[in-house]
Amino acid sequence: MKILQVDFPYAGPFGAEMAAQMQQLAESITQEPGFLWKIWTENQANGEAGGLYAFTDEASAQAYLEMHSARLKSFGVPSVRGRIFDVNSELSTITKAPL
Amino acid sequence: MKILQVDFPYAGPFGAEMAAQMQQLAESITQEPGFLWKIWTENQANGEAGGLYAFTDEASAQAYLEMHSARLKSFGVPSVRGRIFDVNSELSTITKAPL
Repeated sequence: MKILQVDFPYAGPFGAEMAAQMQQLAESITQEPGFLWKIWTENQANGEAGGLYAFTDEASAQAYLEMHSARLKSFGVPSVRGRIFDVNSELSTITKAPL
Repeated sequence: MKILQVDFPYAGPFGAEMAAQMQQLAESITQEPGFLWKIWTENQANGEAGGLYAFTDEASAQAYLEMHSARLKSFGVPSVRGRIFDVNSELSTITKAPL
């Protein structure tokens, strides 16, 4: 499993309005190759949003990051920060990670 | 619930060696105020590591970030990037988030 961490400047919508607008996008994301799950992150006060994803493998995470970055830029997002990580499973088990 | 996302340049150790060195630290983290869980992230190829945390509230997440950043700097980590986010629960439910 690989973790993909993404964040970017974001002017909204947030919360329920964002959820209403992006429901179909969320459903489509579950069909991406290698996709396992996504936590949607948002910070209205700081004007940022992002996502924490799990993918089965690095190639899937990398392909998704490239596709999603291009999509975000088409929505007007000026810059996207993405990082791909392994999980340290032994330490994450100690700290009750929901994996 | 608040998500705390942390990452930083990191030269190692990684994997099992890191787990052996940081087991006591991991156990102590579970005792921090407001702590719910942590996923330990690492990327040996890029020389980066970090963590994705859930805390019960923003003040706990902020206090942990300040304490942990100071601790990482004492370990020789030159810079720490931390972001605190809300979760968009409705979208995260659609995308199978383990929350």
